[in-house]
Amino acid sequence: MDLRVRFAETDQMGVVHHSVYPVWFEAGRVEWMRQRSLSYRELEESGISLAVARLEVAYRSPARFDDLIRVESTLHAARSRQIVFDYRLIRQPDGVLVATGRSEHVPTDRSGRAVRLPGAWLAPLVP
Amino acid sequence: MDLRVRFAETDQMGVVHHSVYPVWFEAGRVEWMRQRSLSYRELEESGISLAVARLEVAYRSPARFDDLIRVESTLHAARSRQIVFDYRLIRQPDGVLVATGRSEHVPTDRSGRAVRLPGAWLAPLVP
Amino acid sequence: MDLRVRFAETDQMGVVHHSVYPVWFEAGRVEWMRQRSLSYRELEESGISLAVARLEVAYRSPARFDDLIRVESTLHAARSRQIVFDYRLIRQPDGVLVATGRSEHVPTDRSGRAVRLPGAWLAPLVP
Amino acid sequence: MDLRVRFAETDQMGVVHHSVYPVWFEAGRVEWMRQRSLSYRELEESGISLAVARLEVAYRSPARFDDLIRVESTLHAARSRQIVFDYRLIRQPDGVLVATGRSEHVPTDRSGRAVRLPGAWLAPLVP
Repeated sequence: MDLRVRFAETDQMGVVHHSVYPVWFEAGRVEWMRQRSLSYRELEESGISLAVARLEVAYRSPARFDDLIRVESTLHAARSRQIVFDYRLIRQPDGVLVATGRSEHVPTDRSGRAVRLPGAWLAPLVP
Repeated sequence: MDLRVRFAETDQMGVVHHSVYPVWFEAGRVEWMRQRSLSYRELEESGISLAVARLEVAYRSPARFDDLIRVESTLHAARSRQIVFDYRLIRQPDGVLVATGRSEHVPTDRSGRAVRLPGAWLAPLVP
Repeated sequence: MDLRVRFAETDQMGVVHHSVYPVWFEAGRVEWMRQRSLSYRELEESGISLAVARLEVAYRSPARFDDLIRVESTLHAARSRQIVFDYRLIRQPDGVLVATGRSEHVPTDRSGRAVRLPGAWLAPLVP
Repeated sequence: MDLRVRFAETDQMGVVHHSVYPVWFEAGRVEWMRQRSLSYRELEESGISLAVARLEVAYRSPARFDDLIRVESTLHAARSRQIVFDYRLIRQPDGVLVATGRSEHVPTDRSGRAVRLPGAWLAPLVP
């Protein structure tokens, strides 16, 4: 998915604040799921969340206001109790690598307890 | 309450982004309630929220990173179905007026329906 | 412009936090300008900002995670020293009105002083 | 430093959104510097930023609205071209570990080029 950098996402250094990239990763993985007919909204409504257990970001080149940024999401691992995504943020159209990242997720119920991901969700993730 | 401006709250104009002020108003009114022994956390846990129905902000002088900002909250109106707060943001220690604002709230239940504010909450608000 | 509600934009009431709407208004007016061949990025780079002087939001119906929201921006007034935009946020595809709003802007230079909007910018705004 | 969790920092899971923790880390390291008579505001004003090059967060236990969170910052490494901070977020008063993290920084000038940290800044950091 491509997104346009919002003015509100910049900071006084004149670049996107580093805390914004995890928000873009999240938007990217939700779209990744949608393209596989997995609705994260429906998963949430069913009472299961993919809680973030770990996050890493490597900042390569700053993103700026009004840049068009492609969020490339890749599924790194999928097990019933852990999902891992990798990300690459790539400025369009010149292809500059803005950042890479990884997020590790644990399926949890509404009380925050770790649970198994439902089979209907896991199956499409495991090749 | 006083708060320190965070770097993340600035934008590339070098000042606090205008969308941050409502967040400070909110923090201010939660503290205002706490000082009157009203826990907004407990109200939320009981299933009632003070949903924002209307918001106004007048921006007077920019706030900058690391400024110390006093949030002055005043209860403008309190009825069982509407609460209105006024705010003044004042830079410390020089007293420069940064912004004024108003938020109008409607008590709602978990499904978003308007409800009456419980008497235990309303009584301390009405003089 | 249409935008997809991000998970990060929700709060514990299960709806979009009220401080997010001004961010969407801003994204909307930047796109409004782009459609008229006005690049807000270039205006910023030239040293002129449209500082927000006043903001109003009326919240009608909550927006939720993964909703598709149309931001309709309308120019309400354009003078060399003041620009006013109106907004309507409309959920797609059912057309539910989520919020309306207004932002008043003052052209400022890098030091924050009010200046006249350059004629090349004002002309396309005044019919 | 201690901070109070803002309502705006929660998401629809009912906990603090994971993108907020880097903002708290940042607030923590600015206070860490202030306690050593290092003003990050002045460093910024002199044209030097500590750009974030890398970020890691491990999420242990969710933080919730109105929690009081202690941000413990530790300097992990300080060289003229790289500063590394470690963080622990600890809920007060019960001492529950909410998260740990690390941020790696590169001193940069206004154009984003890596530069050496001025000696007046480096000296107090190196024991």
